[in-house]
Amino acid sequence: MSTKKELLNQQIQHIDIKQHNVVALVDAMAHMAFSSRDLARAANIYEMMLRDTECGVILCLAGSMVSAGLQKVIVDLVRHNMVDAIVSTGANIVDQDFFEALGYKHYIAGDEYKYGGGDAELRELMIDRIYDTFIDEEELRLCDEVTEKITNSLETRPYSSREFIAEMGRYLKENGRTPENGNNDSVVLAAYEKDVPIFCPAFSDCSAGFGLVAHQHARRGKPVVSIDSAKDFYELTQLKIANPTTGLLMLGGGVPKNFAQDIVVAADILGVEASMHKYAIQITVADARDGALSGSTLKEASSWGKVDLTYEQMVFSEATIAVPLITGYAFHKNAAAARTGKRFSQVLEPVTA
Amino acid sequence: MSTKKELLNQQIQHIDIKQHNVVALVDAMAHMAFSSRDLARAANIYEMMLRDTECGVILCLAGSMVSAGLQKVIVDLVRHNMVDAIVSTGANIVDQDFFEALGYKHYIAGDEYKYGGGDAELRELMIDRIYDTFIDEEELRLCDEVTEKITNSLETRPYSSREFIAEMGRYLKENGRTPENGNNDSVVLAAYEKDVPIFCPAFSDCSAGFGLVAHQHARRGKPVVSIDSAKDFYELTQLKIANPTTGLLMLGGGVPKNFAQDIVVAADILGVEASMHKYAIQITVADARDGALSGSTLKEASSWGKVDLTYEQMVFSEATIAVPLITGYAFHKNAAAARTGKRFSQVLEPVTA
Amino acid sequence: MSTKKELLNQQIQHIDIKQHNVVALVDAMAHMAFSSRDLARAANIYEMMLRDTECGVILCLAGSMVSAGLQKVIVDLVRHNMVDAIVSTGANIVDQDFFEALGYKHYIAGDEYKYGGGDAELRELMIDRIYDTFIDEEELRLCDEVTEKITNSLETRPYSSREFIAEMGRYLKENGRTPENGNNDSVVLAAYEKDVPIFCPAFSDCSAGFGLVAHQHARRGKPVVSIDSAKDFYELTQLKIANPTTGLLMLGGGVPKNFAQDIVVAADILGVEASMHKYAIQITVADARDGALSGSTLKEASSWGKVDLTYEQMVFSEATIAVPLITGYAFHKNAAAARTGKRFSQVLEPVTA
Amino acid sequence: MSTKKELLNQQIQHIDIKQHNVVALVDAMAHMAFSSRDLARAANIYEMMLRDTECGVILCLAGSMVSAGLQKVIVDLVRHNMVDAIVSTGANIVDQDFFEALGYKHYIAGDEYKYGGGDAELRELMIDRIYDTFIDEEELRLCDEVTEKITNSLETRPYSSREFIAEMGRYLKENGRTPENGNNDSVVLAAYEKDVPIFCPAFSDCSAGFGLVAHQHARRGKPVVSIDSAKDFYELTQLKIANPTTGLLMLGGGVPKNFAQDIVVAADILGVEASMHKYAIQITVADARDGALSGSTLKEASSWGKVDLTYEQMVFSEATIAVPLITGYAFHKNAAAARTGKRFSQVLEPVTA
Repeated sequence: MSTKKELLNQQIQHIDIKQHNVVALVDAMAHMAFSSRDLARAANIYEMMLRDTECGVILCLAGSMVSAGLQKVIVDLVRHNMVDAIVSTGANIVDQDFFEALGYKHYIAGDEYKYGGGDAELRELMIDRIYDTFIDEEELRLCDEVTEKITNSLETRPYSSREFIAEMGRYLKENGRTPENGNNDSVVLAAYEKDVPIFCPAFSDCSAGFGLVAHQHARRGKPVVSIDSAKDFYELTQLKIANPTTGLLMLGGGVPKNFAQDIVVAADILGVEASMHKYAIQITVADARDGALSGSTLKEASSWGKVDLTYEQMVFSEATIAVPLITGYAFHKNAAAARTGKRFSQVLEPVTA
Repeated sequence: MSTKKELLNQQIQHIDIKQHNVVALVDAMAHMAFSSRDLARAANIYEMMLRDTECGVILCLAGSMVSAGLQKVIVDLVRHNMVDAIVSTGANIVDQDFFEALGYKHYIAGDEYKYGGGDAELRELMIDRIYDTFIDEEELRLCDEVTEKITNSLETRPYSSREFIAEMGRYLKENGRTPENGNNDSVVLAAYEKDVPIFCPAFSDCSAGFGLVAHQHARRGKPVVSIDSAKDFYELTQLKIANPTTGLLMLGGGVPKNFAQDIVVAADILGVEASMHKYAIQITVADARDGALSGSTLKEASSWGKVDLTYEQMVFSEATIAVPLITGYAFHKNAAAARTGKRFSQVLEPVTA
Repeated sequence: MSTKKELLNQQIQHIDIKQHNVVALVDAMAHMAFSSRDLARAANIYEMMLRDTECGVILCLAGSMVSAGLQKVIVDLVRHNMVDAIVSTGANIVDQDFFEALGYKHYIAGDEYKYGGGDAELRELMIDRIYDTFIDEEELRLCDEVTEKITNSLETRPYSSREFIAEMGRYLKENGRTPENGNNDSVVLAAYEKDVPIFCPAFSDCSAGFGLVAHQHARRGKPVVSIDSAKDFYELTQLKIANPTTGLLMLGGGVPKNFAQDIVVAADILGVEASMHKYAIQITVADARDGALSGSTLKEASSWGKVDLTYEQMVFSEATIAVPLITGYAFHKNAAAARTGKRFSQVLEPVTA
Repeated sequence: MSTKKELLNQQIQHIDIKQHNVVALVDAMAHMAFSSRDLARAANIYEMMLRDTECGVILCLAGSMVSAGLQKVIVDLVRHNMVDAIVSTGANIVDQDFFEALGYKHYIAGDEYKYGGGDAELRELMIDRIYDTFIDEEELRLCDEVTEKITNSLETRPYSSREFIAEMGRYLKENGRTPENGNNDSVVLAAYEKDVPIFCPAFSDCSAGFGLVAHQHARRGKPVVSIDSAKDFYELTQLKIANPTTGLLMLGGGVPKNFAQDIVVAADILGVEASMHKYAIQITVADARDGALSGSTLKEASSWGKVDLTYEQMVFSEATIAVPLITGYAFHKNAAAARTGKRFSQVLEPVTA
């Protein structure tokens, strides 16, 4: 049996789209068929979204994008004004991005572990597995403790996940987990510094949830910090109202997809005639045939009045291949040249206060 | 162009597993290969789970199960002590189950609508589409209004989604939306009456979210009803602690799967040595190869210490086919004969108070 | 390490649709959504196909249907006049059906073998694996030898695969591999007795191929038995011309699907205005998005003039679950009551001669 | 309704991997997770396969690769000694590659046609659809006629598909359908000139099949040209025997995958201790869970003694995205520098004679 150290010896390294000019490659794909053509069209729509300076770009993250080597891509999108708000699963933001921001790493699992043959052994070693990737569960527990510590430092009241995640960004900044200090950059930090709000609509479903549960348990019977998911929804709707033209760049489906699409309807309910999302891209391998939202077409979303039909594109590809091509295309075409940050977090301050 | 009335003329009817004895069929499948054998093993594990009277059975619902004709199956599981807690997406519980409880229906969409050809037309008619199913959006808006009304009637404080959904059950009971009154039975009502708690960890991501946003908007600057997703997690963890032997019956993946699996770790964090889920079944067509949780194997979950390896089974099938066979098998084998309801909602009352 | 005997100890047993009346179950599915509704419609179309006594029913088999426990289903379809011609991969017909007809068996593989963890061990033991099923490779070699023996007994000329497989049927009959003799029934035997032609358009791609290669190698430089795939195509086209109304029941995609669809065009090329396949059902989990034929919709086939749009249905399900339901439905509704065998093999005799 | 001319106005253009240096991009993917890492490993294995100058590289083609814009990639692999034999579906070689070699084109279909909404209209216009690609059926009929003409010009005897396809190459050369004459290059021509044999084990299942059926019909009762699929298998096995070290580069699954894998066993049956395929790569989105060969893992193939476990990699991606990256990587790393053509067609001449 391998030791823990032997198993955790090859770090996941995040791809840097700035190093790979894929413009000609993606342009060539536009004249082919199947997924390559769809990918090229999606890249083109993302470019349009960015050139439309009115457009607020909402990045949706499901699956395990950060641990899979896409952290730097997302950081770059934030740092280069290519995304204005993020809606994510908690796993991407807390267990993976914040975790790496604290200095921990993800590791490459050998192919023999991919299909479950070694899971009993991993359990004994306290190694967690995400398909072909390893995490040191002891480090994850330390990450849980940091979220508990942050929770304990807060005034007891309901918070949107967005507010809580901003506190995580502040924690990183105040504790020197920054590039200036020789540490790696992170999505939570970059978003904090660029006033890009991050929403996790199912926030307790991650490492932060463990910290919050520990906090509420320790203080049972007393006032506690709580996470108001309705407030999340209200805040994101406010952004839609403040910035009517919107585009969605969705990696995977799940709750983030549903949540971001729903704000069009929510705005309507608040009495504001909101336009549908003008642009929408989704990268997913989910199947439409089970009727679930993750694989449902963007055309279906248009029947709900959520997504406009003109500039929408599904791309049938696992994200780690398609995302560097689509975002790298927009980056190297300098599509965000005319954009300055929308600083959406500042828009929400009156809401919060 | 068809009229709205023409399009909404054929109701979805819920299958009644009590009418179909599938025991011999499923037993025959145990000796075949591929999905049929897996399905038979899952049915067998579900039977074991129920015969193990110590076991608290947690039903997880993602996708669109209720609108697809599985409402009565879930009601029957609740009424016959075959499930002790439910973790679900909001869509299943509010937009679909509560919606039907209010007297509205889902409709069969013609095949020509399935691939998106008619979505612009549907948009104009205010018909929403879930793959091959239609919903009257005007009725959905009325459902939103009921959730707003319920919200407005509550004391302003943070609620777990479980508490809020119990209020929805109370509403149905008090307003006579019951079988006793000649109306259809529903999951929300049955769970309310049987003290089966229902959790929606991403609760604002549904029709109730619209009601909550309207409530918070109307009362901005004043105390509001909020939905504390951390409390959800804390409550479900309490159930795991109170009833250590647990089994998962998961229809689809997504947040419900993750949330229900995570309570093992959460209990551990609260200092309680919690056993892994002893039994676990998941019915899904999601692919493992994108690394996302929905399609991740239950073996992978065992590396996280969440699911025991002995009695776990994935079934690769769209749920509307597999669920009637698996649940019907356990029902007709009378597997729950020795079970009385665990009344988990009552366990949570001291937590809530 | 387990012994070969330990690993090959649990036989695959073939499901008997005659024992399971699924009519009410499938009828209930017609009012649901997603795959259950599609499955019910497919069952209904199969019933229509059979009640239309003009219709020649072509069964297409890809994947590993026989080894998976569907052998008896196919035998029953043949014996009860529910199929008039078969187009298949060689694996189903030779490696699996003929193999079992010779008295060999398929075995259930433990779950731990399913994902490849034990394949090196299996290789050493000469056990072949099909996902979750084991085959004794030494027995498979014996099967190869029988096909070589049959080949050597034939006059040297080009044969259609249909002619060759009829010889395999004759071999079974003459060697007493029949139910009358206490042996199991088989597709090859039943089809031989009922004059149901079986075509394997890629015939050398199976156990028979090994026999044929051995034959041609031993006789190199001399006249040999050859397998003329063009003759296959010509013969199947003749059937379409002789019996213009046709329906397809396709389990999986691949070459059989393509081949059977193509005969409409081939008839046209021979100057016969052939009608499209009037009915078409396909059961598959293949995805449409890779553009490959296996997952391509039957609507796409209609653009090629191959399949009529009125009575076509794709069912998204792994075959071992859906096939017993669809065929069992038609069987228990006695849909073939008015049909007598079409004896298509006799139609082809003048072609052959 | 659009006219045929309007619908067929945007040609598919084939990607040129020589123009896109993807080495750094693919190298970066090696340190990520999921499909990107698998893709990088596959590229690396393809590079190893080419640097191993003993290795005979067999390219397997299923699906619609040529019409999708990969024709030039395959031509480049042939022209640059990066492939030594091809096993393909007939569609890729005849309906698509030979078809384009005759001067016809494939066209981009608008998104609104992708899901089948316009298929009745296409049928009327004699436009055939492959997912998102259009073909002029009248041109396809002209292609059928050329294959009939070639068939009629041949001596009547059984041919391997390999021999027949070589005749198609000769036809192109003799009729000036060559780059030297200002026409596009093609796989059939390049393979003819480079002595790269092309096998289509289910040869009649394509445009050539229509020509062959017409030929056999016109000459019924007389000696005809026939296509001996056993001879195909025998010939490919001879290559395995003549060149024991082999590697497989498989785009899609189906018959080509099975056929190419099987030659290891066939060689064994001929009394030659054949080594397993030393290298194997497959690019596919097929699912393993239906037990069919297309999605079966290469580990499963190792249980059959067909593929070695050391250098095998499945890549879960639609081919149009992954193929330019994998082949482009090997091209730009100049992996074939030390290779000269193996001229496998010449090896087969004594077999043929």
